[in-house]
Amino acid sequence: MITLDKISFSQALDLCLENTSETIIKKQVFIYDALKEFIAEDVKAERNSPAFTNSAMDGFAFKHSDNRQLKVVKTIYAGDKYKDFDIKENECVRIMTGARVPEGLDTVIPIEKCISVTDNEIEIPEIKKGSNVRLKGEEFAKGDVLIQKGTEITPEIIAMLVNQGIVNVNIYVKPKIAILSTGNELKDPWESADEDEVYNINSHAIKMLLKKHGFKADIIGIIPDTLDKTVEFIKTLKTKYDVIITSGGISFGDADFLYEAYLKNGLKPLFHGIMVKPGRPTMAGIMDNVFVFALPGNPLSSYINAFGLVIPTLRKLSGADAYYHNIVLAENLKDFKVNPKKDHTILGKYENGKWEAYNGYKYGSGMLSPLINSNSLMILNKGKEIIKKGETVRIVPFECSFGKKCFTFNT
Amino acid sequence: MITLDKISFSQALDLCLENTSETIIKKQVFIYDALKEFIAEDVKAERNSPAFTNSAMDGFAFKHSDNRQLKVVKTIYAGDKYKDFDIKENECVRIMTGARVPEGLDTVIPIEKCISVTDNEIEIPEIKKGSNVRLKGEEFAKGDVLIQKGTEITPEIIAMLVNQGIVNVNIYVKPKIAILSTGNELKDPWESADEDEVYNINSHAIKMLLKKHGFKADIIGIIPDTLDKTVEFIKTLKTKYDVIITSGGISFGDADFLYEAYLKNGLKPLFHGIMVKPGRPTMAGIMDNVFVFALPGNPLSSYINAFGLVIPTLRKLSGADAYYHNIVLAENLKDFKVNPKKDHTILGKYENGKWEAYNGYKYGSGMLSPLINSNSLMILNKGKEIIKKGETVRIVPFECSFGKKCFTFNT
Repeated sequence: MITLDKISFSQALDLCLENTSETIIKKQVFIYDALKEFIAEDVKAERNSPAFTNSAMDGFAFKHSDNRQLKVVKTIYAGDKYKDFDIKENECVRIMTGARVPEGLDTVIPIEKCISVTDNEIEIPEIKKGSNVRLKGEEFAKGDVLIQKGTEITPEIIAMLVNQGIVNVNIYVKPKIAILSTGNELKDPWESADEDEVYNINSHAIKMLLKKHGFKADIIGIIPDTLDKTVEFIKTLKTKYDVIITSGGISFGDADFLYEAYLKNGLKPLFHGIMVKPGRPTMAGIMDNVFVFALPGNPLSSYINAFGLVIPTLRKLSGADAYYHNIVLAENLKDFKVNPKKDHTILGKYENGKWEAYNGYKYGSGMLSPLINSNSLMILNKGKEIIKKGETVRIVPFECSFGKKCFTFNT
Repeated sequence: MITLDKISFSQALDLCLENTSETIIKKQVFIYDALKEFIAEDVKAERNSPAFTNSAMDGFAFKHSDNRQLKVVKTIYAGDKYKDFDIKENECVRIMTGARVPEGLDTVIPIEKCISVTDNEIEIPEIKKGSNVRLKGEEFAKGDVLIQKGTEITPEIIAMLVNQGIVNVNIYVKPKIAILSTGNELKDPWESADEDEVYNINSHAIKMLLKKHGFKADIIGIIPDTLDKTVEFIKTLKTKYDVIITSGGISFGDADFLYEAYLKNGLKPLFHGIMVKPGRPTMAGIMDNVFVFALPGNPLSSYINAFGLVIPTLRKLSGADAYYHNIVLAENLKDFKVNPKKDHTILGKYENGKWEAYNGYKYGSGMLSPLINSNSLMILNKGKEIIKKGETVRIVPFECSFGKKCFTFNT
């Protein structure tokens, strides 16, 4: 077992990602329901692209070796199906964008580039052979791998699937996720609460963060307040879910027996405590086949670690081939100090190539204002005392894509 | 009327954004359904944060002016409700994270920082007054504006709403959107198609792009192939939708009478044709109270203009206070040439501060490979002939947030 607090944020992320089991269950979904899912099989081209040689413009198709004075003998619209016909020397056809270019013709000139156009004749200037013609198969040929297994389905990917006539797509089945909180002091937001009662922010915030990233999760409620009941509760849960995410309950407090209840259910911890500020009381482990995250009770730290650790892990568990947050490089706008003995996750605002830590990194982990007034996270490895104005920093935007390589950490 | 091709991409965007009508219809939704919606009223704090002075750590609460040797007289758990009680000099309480700090005590020391701890007594080192105590209202006070009208609802915003006990939130009703295609040559992807038949990519791709950005749209089908029928078709649609998006049909082709059908329905064009490559045959206008976009027929240009022009406009139409794509700055990896007489929208890949145009910006607008192998767009104003290796360029990631200022264009 790894000792509490001896692990860095990047080691924690590595341990999570190394210990995900392989995704094997697949299902088919209709393309409209496929956004943010991960493709479970390589998608190969069903047809050539373009399927036939066609015009890229509205204009006239002709043979490049002919004269510049041409007789218009026919009009071809997009979608017109026709048998090839004889086109004599110095004859051309009027042709619409997307329409098949007749056999023997090799170049298209757009209407507006013609020197003169009458109903029957056109005069054209010099133009490069093959201009405005899209050749059959020039983009890709039937059988080529277009989309690789593990790719996230974006609107762009759906455009390509439709292009191939694919409307039902094989995706990986995502893990079933349970979210729980500890502490019977928490009220749900639809309950009435006295001023000294606190709402259960974490469960709802994490559920919404997961939803944004394409994961569904059930909020199971609040963990019982005795060890025995909690052991039973977890025992039932682990038969029904692939991932359990709890928040609160694994620091040193007297009432914090959640960790013990996990251990009694066979948990093998990957780490228990991260040397990071905020977000130290964080644990991850495997309990039979269930991946367990125990996040901090503080809403801010809990949210940051859900974003920084849980989302990449859930992506990998779901068969994604890209699970590291993509970063942007930014110029740090103001000096700020950090404790060099710890890693830090620092909220801030990125705009137009510049980044600034929220309130000079002076805020409490019990606050939510830093979160709603930031749009990005800087993850800093230990060792530095000051981040200087003008330094280039690596920033994870809340709206980020994911990549196959890790560029996340500032050193 | 604005002449075809005389307008830049940035002017086109400005014209769209300047001509959106004000959003006034509101509705309430439950927080779980609120992601990507826009807040319709300022949200004020319902309570102080923190609601009461509480401990930031598991530890011991004491009076800073007391000795460093303290008697433990009580334990207070998070959620404990209690009347204030007398605490004598050199007495302290054991306290859990989040628990209310008794009146008269001002500082908390974490368990692990104590010099010695027994059941009844602790010895503590020097610690700053007020440490580990969160004061009532220190983050914000009741009545403060927490979230401004027009803000996009993110998981972070939901965390704050829950913190305030808000589960039903006022949002703007988004516009009703119809998507249409032109050209009876198009097959839907669930139809069987010969090799020389083309699938209707645009409608589905745009619907999915809109879905990703939080907008619902109905695919209405394919516009009839005669002018009269199309005039009638549009006439019916405009009574039912707030936005109509068509693709194809407004270039110079013989079969392109869509524009005329719009005009006969009272369309006042904002522009008709953009001096951009690809994506020239693009039109936007207002038809009674309906915002109309006519996008190119080419899937690539159609998709790019939907992303670059339609999404910001739909956000503004929906009451968002932030509708300009946020950009990242990147180092251009390779020289590439462009036609200096036009604006350009250039697909490419951003990673770790560097960006590279897809295939040196050599690709056709009928292709989809450039789209699925890119993750970002560079929008370039006319005037440049070459984009040099090492230049800093402004890049819009497909996964982007939106801001109140426009940093989109490269000059």
